[in-house]
Amino acid sequence: MSIKVIVWGENVHDQENQVVADLYPKGMHTCIANNLNSDTGIEASTAVLQDPEHGLSQERLVNTDVLLWWGHAAHGEVSDEVVERVANAVLGGMGLIVLHSGHFSKIFKRLMGTPCNLTWREAGERERLWVASRNHPIVKGIPDHFELEYEEMYGEPFGIPEPLETVLISWFQGGEVFRSGVTYKRGAGNVFYFRPGHETYPTYHDENVKTVLLNAVKWAYNEQPRIMNPNDAPNVPVEQALEPIVERGPKLHVDGELGFK
Amino acid sequence: MSIKVIVWGENVHDQENQVVADLYPKGMHTCIANNLNSDTGIEASTAVLQDPEHGLSQERLVNTDVLLWWGHAAHGEVSDEVVERVANAVLGGMGLIVLHSGHFSKIFKRLMGTPCNLTWREAGERERLWVASRNHPIVKGIPDHFELEYEEMYGEPFGIPEPLETVLISWFQGGEVFRSGVTYKRGAGNVFYFRPGHETYPTYHDENVKTVLLNAVKWAYNEQPRIMNPNDAPNVPVEQALEPIVERGPKLHVDGELGFK
Amino acid sequence: MSIKVIVWGENVHDQENQVVADLYPKGMHTCIANNLNSDTGIEASTAVLQDPEHGLSQERLVNTDVLLWWGHAAHGEVSDEVVERVANAVLGGMGLIVLHSGHFSKIFKRLMGTPCNLTWREAGERERLWVASRNHPIVKGIPDHFELEYEEMYGEPFGIPEPLETVLISWFQGGEVFRSGVTYKRGAGNVFYFRPGHETYPTYHDENVKTVLLNAVKWAYNEQPRIMNPNDAPNVPVEQALEPIVERGPKLHVDGELGFK
Amino acid sequence: MSIKVIVWGENVHDQENQVVADLYPKGMHTCIANNLNSDTGIEASTAVLQDPEHGLSQERLVNTDVLLWWGHAAHGEVSDEVVERVANAVLGGMGLIVLHSGHFSKIFKRLMGTPCNLTWREAGERERLWVASRNHPIVKGIPDHFELEYEEMYGEPFGIPEPLETVLISWFQGGEVFRSGVTYKRGAGNVFYFRPGHETYPTYHDENVKTVLLNAVKWAYNEQPRIMNPNDAPNVPVEQALEPIVERGPKLHVDGELGFK
Repeated sequence: MSIKVIVWGENVHDQENQVVADLYPKGMHTCIANNLNSDTGIEASTAVLQDPEHGLSQERLVNTDVLLWWGHAAHGEVSDEVVERVANAVLGGMGLIVLHSGHFSKIFKRLMGTPCNLTWREAGERERLWVASRNHPIVKGIPDHFELEYEEMYGEPFGIPEPLETVLISWFQGGEVFRSGVTYKRGAGNVFYFRPGHETYPTYHDENVKTVLLNAVKWAYNEQPRIMNPNDAPNVPVEQALEPIVERGPKLHVDGELGFK
Repeated sequence: MSIKVIVWGENVHDQENQVVADLYPKGMHTCIANNLNSDTGIEASTAVLQDPEHGLSQERLVNTDVLLWWGHAAHGEVSDEVVERVANAVLGGMGLIVLHSGHFSKIFKRLMGTPCNLTWREAGERERLWVASRNHPIVKGIPDHFELEYEEMYGEPFGIPEPLETVLISWFQGGEVFRSGVTYKRGAGNVFYFRPGHETYPTYHDENVKTVLLNAVKWAYNEQPRIMNPNDAPNVPVEQALEPIVERGPKLHVDGELGFK
Repeated sequence: MSIKVIVWGENVHDQENQVVADLYPKGMHTCIANNLNSDTGIEASTAVLQDPEHGLSQERLVNTDVLLWWGHAAHGEVSDEVVERVANAVLGGMGLIVLHSGHFSKIFKRLMGTPCNLTWREAGERERLWVASRNHPIVKGIPDHFELEYEEMYGEPFGIPEPLETVLISWFQGGEVFRSGVTYKRGAGNVFYFRPGHETYPTYHDENVKTVLLNAVKWAYNEQPRIMNPNDAPNVPVEQALEPIVERGPKLHVDGELGFK
Repeated sequence: MSIKVIVWGENVHDQENQVVADLYPKGMHTCIANNLNSDTGIEASTAVLQDPEHGLSQERLVNTDVLLWWGHAAHGEVSDEVVERVANAVLGGMGLIVLHSGHFSKIFKRLMGTPCNLTWREAGERERLWVASRNHPIVKGIPDHFELEYEEMYGEPFGIPEPLETVLISWFQGGEVFRSGVTYKRGAGNVFYFRPGHETYPTYHDENVKTVLLNAVKWAYNEQPRIMNPNDAPNVPVEQALEPIVERGPKLHVDGELGFK
């Protein structure tokens, strides 16, 4: 049984910018999916902003184990309804891997509850990623550091909640640092943010980046059945209490009703 | 210089339900604010759903150090615009204390990024709160446990992100447990969720509850100047890089522009 | 390739106390190992306090993926040298599952850095374990709660560092609560503490407990090669710096020397 | 009422190395204490390795709110008995601020439970510290980054448990990064590790460093009475159970006895 993955790509600069198109002739999402499909345990397909429902129908999400998200110029064009649908899938157990400029995607900000802002500079400078959590499953096969010769800079302060784990921290040639690989859990879903991936550089062709993404998909996969009602708040009637109790005191509610939301 | 506090109350059952009105003749928010005002270092006022802008204008929030939030029946009537305003105040450094049924408030779900759901039962049963973090500032003066003879039950699983700290855990007579005092940081703002406080019981007259709320206000207070732009993502032009770098490689952006959002 | 497990048992009451011997004729460790061996992906053996080097030679630990630890009456008889050896194995990537009264074992206190103390009562009372992290891998197949009709009580405050994740919380008949399933990472090693398991009750025959232990072994397993030198602090000579720098300023050290420890 | 502080210095290189003696004529500990005493709310004294009981008698620790620790060459000469005494003071509520090479002190490793190792290079290179947690009390008055022109390099991976909060991250000229300001809670004690402070550089004369240390002392201070028995594990006799229970099932223990340790 393979892990079912969707690589979601905004697919704007892939179409409009010649530099990006030359680096990723079939789009960044296709390049990323091809890498994942090199692992026999993973079955990756793609979806783009321009698809109906952005390619993320309820039917498709239900059958998806891990979603990767790359967006940049068109965050605002992603439908709020689809964002809520994706959020519920994550809360129910779907893994989510947010890539680079996806830090400002609706779905990442929705799940973090924070601005997810940072400082940035597009100068093709050197980035060096350091492993802060040795032998974390996400850095399996990765040395203590690796370099990307050309990357966009993202700098601290990074407006995220305290991560569950800080796996990677970046050094930038121009003088900044950044928590470039951080994990979270949201409901039953594992979430990983991975910084590199500016569209005008060949980042997704880098062997270490490819390894991190393969590892991250396996790490994010929750093999248990999806929780289909991650927002439910069930009433427990008095007569079904696990320890016998007698109802007493004044009441607002009728037994078994739904709570206020 | 005192800590400036707003106690926000939904003020629905306080008006409509005779039991609640008898317990809290001027509303729960007033009772809570009176308790806080017993401390000379705190200056607490109130705001309610029915006020213009729910009593939470930008001018007022800018001058507020800590906001307490109690809502239940009318979460859906709180304006999304005010929720975003409050969220930005918290991210900029305002403390937030969310009370009881406020677990389902828009502002708490907005800042947590999760459903914040739970199981519940209104049976006037005994709750016993245990301190899990001894001598945490929020439980100053509180013994290792205290009881509320009549309370609504909230049970695990509680749909929150892993707390920064779990300060209190509740035992319920009917057989459930609940993380009833948990801390978070969102941006520069300290957030505390405190479980007790069902409107048909005299919870906010309880001495231990009153002490926890006084402590929590002091804990949540961030004395530093408010960050007024908690969502900014400034570009750092190449010529202002802290280490000299030479721009290279292909580009998408013009120097100094705002990032995509 | 199966996961190689050692179940370590103190094996004192198993030998001396008739109640324990009747429940666990070959010792608790053997009962626990038999359960684990019911899974074809796990290969579990046992070790006891009375073995040479407590059955935990360096050679054996190097080939062990996950260690389970049950001790109670004889924590003080465990050799400090073996404790350090086990600690280094965990830091290098071996999983560790600490059971019940093992909260006071040298190895758990060594890795936590805290007293790991609690309140307790041996009265055969009912314990109900609630899942706080739905669909966490450790509670795969476990309902939202399960009961142990006869157990020793452990109560908060539990003197542990804030867990990475709180997976299970216990309710006790006598009025206490306890964080009964908590995860940590120490170096490359995954650590899980699981509360139930008093030796005079049939806890390790319980189906839910058996499932949790099977899940925990799989969760704790780190498939990457063991880090053999988890305490090294290598000097990076100036001429090997990743960015060219020129040595300057006054010095204490000679290049390439070991740091002070 | 002022915060009572001890600045503990190893006082070895301060005495033996001319460079260090020139920078810190009365020792680094005295320089650090003088800075703290510039705040009227702090009352700082010093203690050194060479004092009887290293200057850390039980009587003195009981009256100390926050301890700062700088050691390097002589970690091994610190008595294990004093380390346990300090550990118990921290667990009972004394704040602890560990400085620079103190990452390898017995007390820090004792409280972390991990190797606390790192990579290092003494080349007088530039360090730039970035604030990762804006408006955290420890960085009050500190800009988003500040520089130390001459410092020793410490690099990731840093062998610590996941911090409660990552407040500062360092960039080094030679290409490394490091989590240089991290918080923990151990029992009732607040712990802060702060990286800068190599003895051959004028780090403790730097204004930003001085501000961080002043802030850290105030942050670490727990105003509540010290817990004098942080390791106790009290038995709760059946007849004192908070909910009435009847003892049943087989027993190992006699009521009210101490647990095994």
